Amino acid sequence: MTQRTRLLGTDNVDLVAGNGLMSRRHLLTRGAAVTGALSSATLMTLGSPAAAGTDALTVPEWMKVPGEAVEPYGLPSRFEKLARNPRTPLQYLDGMITPNPLHFVIAHNGVPDIDPDQHRFLIHGLVKRPLEFTLEALERYPRMSRIVFLECAGNGRALYEEQPVKGDAQSIQGLLSCAEWTGVSLAMLLDEAGVDQKSKWLLAEGADAAAMSRSIPLAKALDDAFIALYQNGEPLRPSNGFPMRLMVPGFHGNMNVKWLRRIELTEGPMMTKDETSHYSMLLKDGSVAQFKFPIDAKSVITHPSPGLTMRGPGFYEISGAAWSGNGKIVKVEVSVDGGRSWASAVLSEPVLSKAITRFRSPWQWDGGPAVLQSRATDDTGYVQPTREQLLEKRGRNAFYFNNAITSWGVASSGQVTHVYV
Amino acid sequence: MTQRTRLLGTDNVDLVAGNGLMSRRHLLTRGAAVTGALSSATLMTLGSPAAAGTDALTVPEWMKVPGEAVEPYGLPSRFEKLARNPRTPLQYLDGMITPNPLHFVIAHNGVPDIDPDQHRFLIHGLVKRPLEFTLEALERYPRMSRIVFLECAGNGRALYEEQPVKGDAQSIQGLLSCAEWTGVSLAMLLDEAGVDQKSKWLLAEGADAAAMSRSIPLAKALDDAFIALYQNGEPLRPSNGFPMRLMVPGFHGNMNVKWLRRIELTEGPMMTKDETSHYSMLLKDGSVAQFKFPIDAKSVITHPSPGLTMRGPGFYEISGAAWSGNGKIVKVEVSVDGGRSWASAVLSEPVLSKAITRFRSPWQWDGGPAVLQSRATDDTGYVQPTREQLLEKRGRNAFYFNNAITSWGVASSGQVTHVYV
Repeated sequence: MTQRTRLLGTDNVDLVAGNGLMSRRHLLTRGAAVTGALSSATLMTLGSPAAAGTDALTVPEWMKVPGEAVEPYGLPSRFEKLARNPRTPLQYLDGMITPNPLHFVIAHNGVPDIDPDQHRFLIHGLVKRPLEFTLEALERYPRMSRIVFLECAGNGRALYEEQPVKGDAQSIQGLLSCAEWTGVSLAMLLDEAGVDQKSKWLLAEGADAAAMSRSIPLAKALDDAFIALYQNGEPLRPSNGFPMRLMVPGFHGNMNVKWLRRIELTEGPMMTKDETSHYSMLLKDGSVAQFKFPIDAKSVITHPSPGLTMRGPGFYEISGAAWSGNGKIVKVEVSVDGGRSWASAVLSEPVLSKAITRFRSPWQWDGGPAVLQSRATDDTGYVQPTREQLLEKRGRNAFYFNNAITSWGVASSGQVTHVYV
Repeated sequence: MTQRTRLLGTDNVDLVAGNGLMSRRHLLTRGAAVTGALSSATLMTLGSPAAAGTDALTVPEWMKVPGEAVEPYGLPSRFEKLARNPRTPLQYLDGMITPNPLHFVIAHNGVPDIDPDQHRFLIHGLVKRPLEFTLEALERYPRMSRIVFLECAGNGRALYEEQPVKGDAQSIQGLLSCAEWTGVSLAMLLDEAGVDQKSKWLLAEGADAAAMSRSIPLAKALDDAFIALYQNGEPLRPSNGFPMRLMVPGFHGNMNVKWLRRIELTEGPMMTKDETSHYSMLLKDGSVAQFKFPIDAKSVITHPSPGLTMRGPGFYEISGAAWSGNGKIVKVEVSVDGGRSWASAVLSEPVLSKAITRFRSPWQWDGGPAVLQSRATDDTGYVQPTREQLLEKRGRNAFYFNNAITSWGVASSGQVTHVYV
């Protein structure tokens, strides 16, 4: 079957930036829905004309025999081989939600096999009434649901390296996922325990073999932290904290302590191994940035990206994920000429604070070399920096929190690779 | 471990309906977030005081040995036994998203094992240019993402029966799920094929052994229909239509044709077996209601519900799912006295058109008999009917589209069962 892909007639196309980048109006019609101005046959013809004289398809083998029974707990097609490594395969996914089996995982000493009936969660330290909770007790509280991204502080650290990386979106930026989490407000539980006025911080500790523990400002706990029991509707899975994890929306992944066993209210931070030997970063001037929590606004293009080789000139949708630990994404701009010119992308609704926002931008590739970039802006006005700007500020020892613009180079062959511009 | 549950002091509680139903203000504090006015220790104490003299937990066995490796494609805890039958186990889930492995499935002749490289999708009939698409070709089009519920037309049909059902939320109302779907606008593809002015309907046919096929008004296709390729981020699974399915948001489940192989534009409906022998309903006066598509506003309480036995008087959160095929849910009211008095529930954000909205309502159970009900209103002003109202209108042969209020009876023992009031 021959696929017809052809150049768009520029007389019909509203080009708004260099190298063939089209106006997002081509994706925005029929009211608020993202549908088809591009649908005009004068703009794009990707479907193939059906064979002459036939008006029906061959009946495939799988229509001639009864199908399989429905599995009680469903599985993907045997033709799909998606896997986390343990990073999320961003280049093969779409939308804002990450399915639970592909949510990235970092575990400092493996994934514990916790018996939920034996698990206990303690709130103690500077409280009036230390309280202990079984899972059953915690299930009795009022609940809240929220769609929240998680990103590991080490995500994108390859961009601190001297040379571009032979990797794909998964290996370079795949410590990023987003899910709907449901659980119990931490403020509610702390009110019940009675917070001592001396307390300004808390320690959260996991029930894994690393006893992973982090210090968190009490103000964050009282703002929007919660104890998650459900992920995308079902109980958490072991790799993501079963039976309960702390959620501190917008703070880097490691702070959202999995397998949560205790929260101890303290006067100051506890300087645990996990916030001194890790998750602190050496800056240019030799000082150390510690207790940097919210993830700054960031974005990454997932299609096209390395591994997704482009098949000739014609129309392509550029899409990706944008997120900010400080609020909502208000704008994502896309460039296909290495940052010389930019076009605003469509943001897929719902756009939620501290969640992934999917962006989409139409592109007419002429078959020549191109460099693809995306730049996110959040509702604080913060704009995602270039790599040069970030390195200038941080130096090369920083390791964590690299939210610089990622560049994908497109060769005339259609191959896509990580590049620096 | 003894769990302390006790009655709330009514002097601190804003009761707004009979039998202990509290104001939703107890769930609404700290701005828009659903957090903890209930957190006051004077309102609720569900946690247990930690043992005297101790300020730490016993170290469990799973903290003493390194944990397991992360699975490439993740699995639930071995302690969790959730399964669809093939209905979604609503009573064990929370939030708005249904995880893919538990999304309900109806297949008229099993689940086909489709090779995505061999699958073809044809648009033909009353079009200027019949077009054939490979999955690869369809992947090239601009995409859209939308969170959409699916409900089988036969969901809740037990409520047409004479006697209450010995069943749970899963068996009575579990042909209901919600996911984020990503794919290609159908209007865009139809524009490319060129719609003949004579066409007012289309036929959508699946590549399963039932060749499941339905007639759909062209106006719906041009409004918000799309071809889904992804469900909650990952490629569709076979049980939900891999490699592609039609989505007609708000129309009953069966119309969202799975394993989509062709769309044929027609002048009128095709009267297929799947819309004549099924999915039509005999009304009271002997006439048949056919081609009833959008799901009317409906809701069901999932917690508490049959199988979730209540453990003594005290605080409970009543929560459930509400949805409408005609728009957004604007209000859900909850009653615990069989519909004599009602209180407004909190609607969990984001509230989206044609998606499940999770509602939550605080309840102080005094340990006496109670009948729990929920009543949804959508933005067209439509109010979910009582069972009596629906039966009066439809008669008892109707079978499909039962959106009547579901009643759960609570006995003093804490047992919850389906009842009629």
